Amino acid sequence: MAKQYLVIGLGRFGTSVAKTLYEAGEDVLAVDIDEDLVQEAVNNSVVDNAVTLDVADERAMKEIGAGNFDVAFVCIGSKLQSSIIITLILQEMGVKNIIAKAVSKSHGKVLGKIGATKVIYPEEYMGKRVALLAMEPNMIEHLRFSQDFLLVEIKAPSIFWDKTLMELGIRNKYNVNIVGIKKGNGTLDPTPRADSVIEKDDILLVITDAKTAKQLEDLK
Amino acid sequence: MAKQYLVIGLGRFGTSVAKTLYEAGEDVLAVDIDEDLVQEAVNNSVVDNAVTLDVADERAMKEIGAGNFDVAFVCIGSKLQSSIIITLILQEMGVKNIIAKAVSKSHGKVLGKIGATKVIYPEEYMGKRVALLAMEPNMIEHLRFSQDFLLVEIKAPSIFWDKTLMELGIRNKYNVNIVGIKKGNGTLDPTPRADSVIEKDDILLVITDAKTAKQLEDLK
Ligand SMILES: Nc1ncnc2c1ncn2[C@@H]1O[C@H](COP(=O)(O)OP(=O)(O)OP(=O)(O)O)[C@@H](O)[C@H]1O
Ligand SMILES: Nc1ncnc2c1ncn2[C@@H]1O[C@H](COP(=O)(O)OP(=O)(O)OP(=O)(O)O)[C@@H](O)[C@H]1O
Ligand SMILES: [Ca+2]
Ligand SMILES: [Ca+2]
Ligand SMILES: [Ca+2]
Ligand SMILES: [Ca+2]
Repeated sequence: MAKQYLVIGLGRFGTSVAKTLYEAGEDVLAVDIDEDLVQEAVNNSVVDNAVTLDVADERAMKEIGAGNFDVAFVCIGSKLQSSIIITLILQEMGVKNIIAKAVSKSHGKVLGKIGATKVIYPEEYMGKRVALLAMEPNMIEHLRFSQDFLLVEIKAPSIFWDKTLMELGIRNKYNVNIVGIKKGNGTLDPTPRADSVIEKDDILLVITDAKTAKQLEDLK
Repeated sequence: MAKQYLVIGLGRFGTSVAKTLYEAGEDVLAVDIDEDLVQEAVNNSVVDNAVTLDVADERAMKEIGAGNFDVAFVCIGSKLQSSIIITLILQEMGVKNIIAKAVSKSHGKVLGKIGATKVIYPEEYMGKRVALLAMEPNMIEHLRFSQDFLLVEIKAPSIFWDKTLMELGIRNKYNVNIVGIKKGNGTLDPTPRADSVIEKDDILLVITDAKTAKQLEDLK
């Protein structure tokens, strides 16, 4: 059976969660205590299924069968008490997968203790991400796989232009694995070969260690 | 010369930006109008260089030489007016790279118009990210490279265990490129070969199209 998703709170975070699920064709019910937000969500096609509800009201939660959802998102930030109570209610109603947003480490700790299976810190996460990207102006994406390795998306340095991967001997000269080449027109070559040519405006998807990533970044 | 970073606002987002830069060894000055937050940031080693300042006060901004910074982060959310004024001041002082956080699309639009080179929406971005990951329980990471291709990190399905990539014929059977194998002990093999064996508890880093990613996800 298709999974059922419950999204609680239609602030910016919850709206984005609900919209993403709905656009992917999932079954999602969104709730908010604020009738205007619920109406707006339906009018803007964020979801097609939304109700006005105080989630701290256990009876109302039973009425919507909150315990039957496979995944619940608790998207309440500023009202700590509501966020904590609803996480507890969901846990007691037997929801197996509870993803809750936290506004501080202490908030997040409490959520984890009372039953959240995953705690999200949007501001902290994004702050870190944005700073990492700002330090490396040629780096477009940055994803750490392990202590040692990361995937970076970097603009091809000019010394690479019009050369094949073999000519550049990249795999031997640097400790890198070029796993994709994004061409200037937006298409991606997901299986670069020894005779693939790197061109101006190409973006390289590279798996490498942090030190090599910095070296690549500094190539002109 | 090393780049100089200015971080304005020591809320959760700004603190995370400042900490990430400082831990990476960059030159960073953090400012906030709230003296307690500035003191706290220094005490907690978020940064070593922080001052109490009203950034809407142009004279004070000149005193810290705000125009000389290479990158400025405007990390003010709820006070829209301050966020907009400071972005304008930074632009007029000649800061080339202004990264500003926005709390709504209209806020972000204004910031872009008056000089922000990049606008960040933490709640929207994270909501989308979290929803995408929740839909695919075996998917650990998810990064879209282009309209068609994405990188996913998935738990190796049991039908892959104890087989080599060649035996599985993965590249022919599915339209995928396995670009890394994360082993159970946390190490990463960044250059998997035809004779690499997939084991229980392995995590596969795969570049593929969205449809194939869903197929892989559903393998048991
Ligand atoms: N008891 C409740 N029942 C239902 N909805 C609630 C309840 N308490 C709060 N909400 C709703 O949750 C939503 C998000 O809460 P709030 O605005 O406090 O968090 P936030 O962190 O500022 O949100 P965001 O950053 O995502 O905009 C609001 O729209 C609010 O009406
Ligand atoms: N004029 C100003 N000069 C200096 N600092 C300011 C000014 N206005 C606001 N700040 C600081 O910016 C910080 C972040 O602002 P605010 O709390 O409004 O945003 P926020 O979106 O809630 O932050 P976050 O979500 O990152 O915690 C606060 O610590 C505040 O003191
Ligand atoms: Ca809100
Ligand atoms: Ca704040
Ligand atoms: Ca926020
Ligand atoms: Ca699936």
